Amino acid sequence: MDIAIINTWLLTFQGDNLGIIQDGALGIEDGKISYVGSTDGFNYKEADRIIEGTDHVAMPGLINGHIHTPLTLLRGGAQDLPEIEWMNKGILPLAMHMTLEDLICGSKLGVLEGLRTGTTTFAEYTINAVDILEKVYLPWQVRVVATEMINEVGFGRTHLKPIDLYEFDRSKGENELKRAQELFQKFRSEELVTCMYGPQALDMVSLDLLKTIKEQAIEQNAGIHMHVAQGQRERLQITGRYGKNASTVKVLHKNGLLGPFLLAAHCHDTNEKERELMVKEGVKMVACPSAIGMIDGIVPPVGHYVELGGSAGLGTDQAAGPGSHNLFREMRTASLLTKTLHRDPTVLPAWKALQLATIGGAKILGIASKVGSLEVGKQADVITLNLRHLHLTPTVSRPFRNFIPNLVYSTNGTEVDNVIINGKVILSKGKFVNIDEQAIIEEANIRAKRIFESASEDWKKANSKLVKYTQEGWL
Amino acid sequence: MDIAIINTWLLTFQGDNLGIIQDGALGIEDGKISYVGSTDGFNYKEADRIIEGTDHVAMPGLINGHIHTPLTLLRGGAQDLPEIEWMNKGILPLAMHMTLEDLICGSKLGVLEGLRTGTTTFAEYTINAVDILEKVYLPWQVRVVATEMINEVGFGRTHLKPIDLYEFDRSKGENELKRAQELFQKFRSEELVTCMYGPQALDMVSLDLLKTIKEQAIEQNAGIHMHVAQGQRERLQITGRYGKNASTVKVLHKNGLLGPFLLAAHCHDTNEKERELMVKEGVKMVACPSAIGMIDGIVPPVGHYVELGGSAGLGTDQAAGPGSHNLFREMRTASLLTKTLHRDPTVLPAWKALQLATIGGAKILGIASKVGSLEVGKQADVITLNLRHLHLTPTVSRPFRNFIPNLVYSTNGTEVDNVIINGKVILSKGKFVNIDEQAIIEEANIRAKRIFESASEDWKKANSKLVKYTQEGWL
Repeated sequence: MDIAIINTWLLTFQGDNLGIIQDGALGIEDGKISYVGSTDGFNYKEADRIIEGTDHVAMPGLINGHIHTPLTLLRGGAQDLPEIEWMNKGILPLAMHMTLEDLICGSKLGVLEGLRTGTTTFAEYTINAVDILEKVYLPWQVRVVATEMINEVGFGRTHLKPIDLYEFDRSKGENELKRAQELFQKFRSEELVTCMYGPQALDMVSLDLLKTIKEQAIEQNAGIHMHVAQGQRERLQITGRYGKNASTVKVLHKNGLLGPFLLAAHCHDTNEKERELMVKEGVKMVACPSAIGMIDGIVPPVGHYVELGGSAGLGTDQAAGPGSHNLFREMRTASLLTKTLHRDPTVLPAWKALQLATIGGAKILGIASKVGSLEVGKQADVITLNLRHLHLTPTVSRPFRNFIPNLVYSTNGTEVDNVIINGKVILSKGKFVNIDEQAIIEEANIRAKRIFESASEDWKKANSKLVKYTQEGWL
Repeated sequence: MDIAIINTWLLTFQGDNLGIIQDGALGIEDGKISYVGSTDGFNYKEADRIIEGTDHVAMPGLINGHIHTPLTLLRGGAQDLPEIEWMNKGILPLAMHMTLEDLICGSKLGVLEGLRTGTTTFAEYTINAVDILEKVYLPWQVRVVATEMINEVGFGRTHLKPIDLYEFDRSKGENELKRAQELFQKFRSEELVTCMYGPQALDMVSLDLLKTIKEQAIEQNAGIHMHVAQGQRERLQITGRYGKNASTVKVLHKNGLLGPFLLAAHCHDTNEKERELMVKEGVKMVACPSAIGMIDGIVPPVGHYVELGGSAGLGTDQAAGPGSHNLFREMRTASLLTKTLHRDPTVLPAWKALQLATIGGAKILGIASKVGSLEVGKQADVITLNLRHLHLTPTVSRPFRNFIPNLVYSTNGTEVDNVIINGKVILSKGKFVNIDEQAIIEEANIRAKRIFESASEDWKKANSKLVKYTQEGWL
């Protein structure tokens, strides 16, 4: 046996509840889980590495269902802005100054932050996915569900008014589809990689190209990961293009583009009937409550989607808005925002949030046979958390386990002290085993300084409200 | 000079904006701030202690405007419950098994958690305030705005239906008022202590006693800290007692109980007109978004109160609901919840949240002449944060300071590495100077185990929904 975790609280997520095991143990061999059960009677002494789990919880690694890690390098770059300004006046003037090397550095930063706080699978949605995988995920041996973003709209649109329709550039779309195919060809046999197709959103891609992508996805038994119904900015494009009663979900449905192959991100500009339709068609949903709350002032409808019986997970999107790739924080945020949206403190309880970030995430990404719960035979993606912190104290187990709500409502992510992916220890006792964290912070600061400074004039010219706030001494 | 902090970003909160100073320095002498300005030209070399502030932000210590620290020992004890069950079926069956020693231990835990994450003033609202001050705040030399809770309703009300009116017990109220007077007598000359009167809420105290308290408060030039309009549970009592059109704000107004002497906590069961009235009367508000979101599924109306020009601050309430006494987290939560309530991502921007937790908190507690900003002559309550963490990277300062939004949206509280109260260093380089954190965690675990186990039968008998969830393996 390679690794044994002993004397720990286990949350296995097997079966219909959390699968709680007291004084539990976990065995890991050849990258897979070889034992799950009581420490008592578990023959762990020959294990190469024994992790003592007293005062700890061991659980499946968290699964981030929607993340753009390269944009982490723009953290703090755009927030507190009107939704209609956020992308074109806030983020784009900065993002346009990023080089490929910047994207890779941003990705490293985002992945490290996620790993540090217990994420073991990243549904990476990016441009230059091949490079990001080759330079970040594969060398670090981190599980990734990779999507090359495809759109037919150029970056040079900061001059457009929200009502002006974007012009589609089919050759750009075809070129990006080729890059997506290259991603599939290069990595589909990699143990740690799953590939999906990534048309950006219905306002950014023509129906024609979408249908081509769907055909290819179905042929390759792959999923489509797409932003769906992202709010006012998208709706103006959709009604302008498809008629005043059109909506993203209606147009997708009419064109056969809703189905179990679709992972729909955000979905905050959908109504109840549209969500019912999506659930009926087997569409999966990923919600990023921090990002959508911050960028749009809207709570993504994940509570309703779950109530309807839909398959859902959580993601952190990009760091420029919500500021964080910490899925423990995201669970808390999802629960609190959903409770206030429904005006009901019982919705999305702690245990449901924990499911969304583990087995729920695995299901929406189509990898639940491999990860998302602690079961013998699954890949060993496991994290442990130390409960002996001020903010998690006290820990009691009778008459109920108070540490389960505390895992969601009280953690800050720093309690994660071991992170294991595919049986390999990435973080040990709170320290990265093979990654120089400070060197990456250093590089990120140097690169960001250059990006923000060279973007300075464009940013001022775009003239978002942040320019005024900066002049006034608030920023 | 006792302490000099040099080469740092300073957020002074002087004037009409954040008072940002680059390459700033701060001098501390005899417990007070003796210098605020540029490092250049600051003669710091003779200081007894020099804190190098490169890659750091120094700012006023945070001010928690409403906290019940003793209940921290019940963290994770009641959440995900219907509001109407939360107090009487959730928290009370546990709280009834707490001894005075338990309350003190819970207070230590809550204060430590707050200190660790940058809080330097605690508006402590509790029973046994004298003991809590003598055993926790004074020995640790932590600034406190202390309130002894006064009510006329016994704990033995778990059998009551929500519609049953609580019986008022005037002698209990008088007795608690005496304890409050004792608090004033003992501590009002203490440098670190400010006292307030604390009638619990209009459903828990008679109008007669409230008027007596108001007279005494005005006579002593002290404030009244009171829970106001806390939702359905309170409203049922108010309409049952004062008529079907009655509301807490209306009844308080009619009886001369709204005024600048009042600090109103929560206020989520108020309408716009009532809040206008409160602002007009000079009432101060303290909002606890995590607690009220979690317990009631409601966003406290702090955004509206601020828009109206009202004086407001933030608090963390008790840990059994929201799970945390981390004011950095509370700023983020306040901003996100308010944005989604208003459906407007521009409301409660980062800098406004920072104000609420610093100078705003000082104003609502009536101590803004002493603390809340970095100004020469004020008491030296100062914290520093290390920006060199993955989750705060990158840091840029041109064309704007991205670290300001990151302080609100990306921090987890662990970046706080120096905490200074009244010129005394409490936390140095992330470690408590004179407090054994692990010993308190140990004691808290032992005490909580006894409380929860001895409360087991009462908790099951109260039969909140958590009992069922526990049986089903969710908790």
